[in-house]
Amino acid sequence: MLTRPDVAVVGAGPVGLAIAWRCASRGLRVVVHDPAPGSGASHVAAGMLSPVAEAYFGEHELTGLLAESAARWPGFAAELAQAAGVEFGHRTEGTLVVGLTSDDLAEARRLWSYQQGLGLPITPLRPSQLRDREPALAPRVRGGAVAPGDHQVDPRRLVVALRSAAERAGATLPPGPVARLADVDARVTVVAAGCGAAALTGLPVRPVKGQVLRLRAPDRAAPDFRHVIRGYADGESVYLVPRADGEVVVGATVEERADTEVTAGAVLRLLRAAVDLVPDLAEYDLVEASAGLRPGTPDNAPILGPLPGHPGVLVATGHHRHGIVLTPVTADLITELVVTGEADPLLAPFTPDRFGPPDATHPGSARVGPAGPESSTEEERTWN
Amino acid sequence: MLTRPDVAVVGAGPVGLAIAWRCASRGLRVVVHDPAPGSGASHVAAGMLSPVAEAYFGEHELTGLLAESAARWPGFAAELAQAAGVEFGHRTEGTLVVGLTSDDLAEARRLWSYQQGLGLPITPLRPSQLRDREPALAPRVRGGAVAPGDHQVDPRRLVVALRSAAERAGATLPPGPVARLADVDARVTVVAAGCGAAALTGLPVRPVKGQVLRLRAPDRAAPDFRHVIRGYADGESVYLVPRADGEVVVGATVEERADTEVTAGAVLRLLRAAVDLVPDLAEYDLVEASAGLRPGTPDNAPILGPLPGHPGVLVATGHHRHGIVLTPVTADLITELVVTGEADPLLAPFTPDRFGPPDATHPGSARVGPAGPESSTEEERTWN
Repeated sequence: MLTRPDVAVVGAGPVGLAIAWRCASRGLRVVVHDPAPGSGASHVAAGMLSPVAEAYFGEHELTGLLAESAARWPGFAAELAQAAGVEFGHRTEGTLVVGLTSDDLAEARRLWSYQQGLGLPITPLRPSQLRDREPALAPRVRGGAVAPGDHQVDPRRLVVALRSAAERAGATLPPGPVARLADVDARVTVVAAGCGAAALTGLPVRPVKGQVLRLRAPDRAAPDFRHVIRGYADGESVYLVPRADGEVVVGATVEERADTEVTAGAVLRLLRAAVDLVPDLAEYDLVEASAGLRPGTPDNAPILGPLPGHPGVLVATGHHRHGIVLTPVTADLITELVVTGEADPLLAPFTPDRFGPPDATHPGSARVGPAGPESSTEEERTWN
Repeated sequence: MLTRPDVAVVGAGPVGLAIAWRCASRGLRVVVHDPAPGSGASHVAAGMLSPVAEAYFGEHELTGLLAESAARWPGFAAELAQAAGVEFGHRTEGTLVVGLTSDDLAEARRLWSYQQGLGLPITPLRPSQLRDREPALAPRVRGGAVAPGDHQVDPRRLVVALRSAAERAGATLPPGPVARLADVDARVTVVAAGCGAAALTGLPVRPVKGQVLRLRAPDRAAPDFRHVIRGYADGESVYLVPRADGEVVVGATVEERADTEVTAGAVLRLLRAAVDLVPDLAEYDLVEASAGLRPGTPDNAPILGPLPGHPGVLVATGHHRHGIVLTPVTADLITELVVTGEADPLLAPFTPDRFGPPDATHPGSARVGPAGPESSTEEERTWN
């Protein structure tokens, strides 16, 4: 590249690639740095677009952002399909939330009463109504509800599509890793490096391990069920995400650990809950067991906006369990910030400065510099 | 090879390689044909040397052969270690047979009473005695017994050692598969091709699928237990084989199927039984789930001896669940037959002719021919 890029995105997961696509579509010169695109949390993620089933007590502002991003997903998906020319498994059958035992159902009911109180679309169903929708559910499932707006997408295919769209719009992916922000030369740097953002920025992003299984229906038939099933089974929370190609994703553990080993106990718990909820899954092939690291934050909400003390550096990380659903809103808001220098009010609860100044002793937290000739003081002012 | 080999072994699993080693050590020119040595049932096998715990009702003659071969294992292992120059995980701590519930214990007791009746060494233990030997056992294990003579070996390392010993003794392994016996040119052909023997010989060898897991202790420590544990857990039969390098093999299903898919239900049943018996296994990494095909026969006993109607062809297959423990006696008896033309009386119950003539319509059942100048009429006479 002969001229300095307008935007350098560090991290080619869905968030980074979507930002690159959106910025390149606005006419900016964009590079994306990632030695292994799509190899982070998204490679393991199930891809539920679940503003409702992911709305938990005490996370009002996050729930609002989830709902906002989920509302943007249909338009985002349509644009992306056209821009990328490939499919990525966006499905809109909705999600069933079910409880296996009466204790499980009581737990699920507590949560969906809260979700209903927020005005989110979730409708309780009688067991017979559940089984009318999904005959594959175990007869002993005690009850549930439907969240018709909780959809799904295949994250691995999403990465392929986003990369294609970004490259078609002119973004480039030079090889090689980025060890320090000081190594990046661009007018604006966007750190969308998932857990890697901690080392690059000093922000409090920690790895949260998730173990996930991938099953496949025998003879490559489609799975016996079409809805995403979010189940509580003997105290275990599990989700089952059916894909058209026969895959069923079963997830996920949430562990405060930084290793990516697959453990016997986690596989046992996931399989037991899955087979308790949908007995036919016992006949499915177990084709993959994997573990990924979600980028968690102190309040479980993402970190979106200018990095304090680092003019020209934006952050888009900390998406924790919600990276896929939050991809459209993250890309829109960060792109707007890059292009106009103006922060959308939606960003306010999620800016990096809510955690105080980044850890200045961190080796990766060196200033970006020296500023090149294209450096714009407007952005620096706006972001700091 | 300029001259016709004395012996061509078809199949480089433990049985075929042990025969090759023994024959080459006797001064014969030996070739072993296998496009992928060690890739059959032995690659999945756990490697229990269990004449006692594998003695089932109605299998007297097989039990005798198991006991005979197990008795030969210590000498075989010592010779092999010297000949191969590599270790293969031969361990002699013995086997604990345990029952989780009182029903499981009743089932286990029925079997070990039968085994005691045959004079096999198995001694009941009180729960406190069990836990003195293996504190890792779950507190709710109701009781068990010890079979001190039931040992173990690592089949993957055994294949490496046997191949090394065979090659050091002069055997060669030319590349490429053998599709028909007629393609093999040797004075004597030994079919030790596991399930592949059916197509080559027309004998009634069928695949019996087994699914097996491999766990690994965290931080590559040795497992928390030293004995092989053969357990009955809520009606599920499972074995746990600890290796010095931290591996624990958990097996195995016995399924009348010919595919090698790993299924969710099998992994669930194996893990549940394993963790019920030794709870700490939940913390172990699940490093491999695999399926292999055992060569089963109508009476579950191996097929050892001359192939009817095919002068110069011997068979050593059909070892089903017992290929590893039966390797020494199989190699000794087949080698003796090759060298002297005399059949040891031990072979009598296991010769191929007990199933009548092989399926003559089978494409692989063509005669070996034409007989070359080294062809020996003695063997032909003895074997037919």
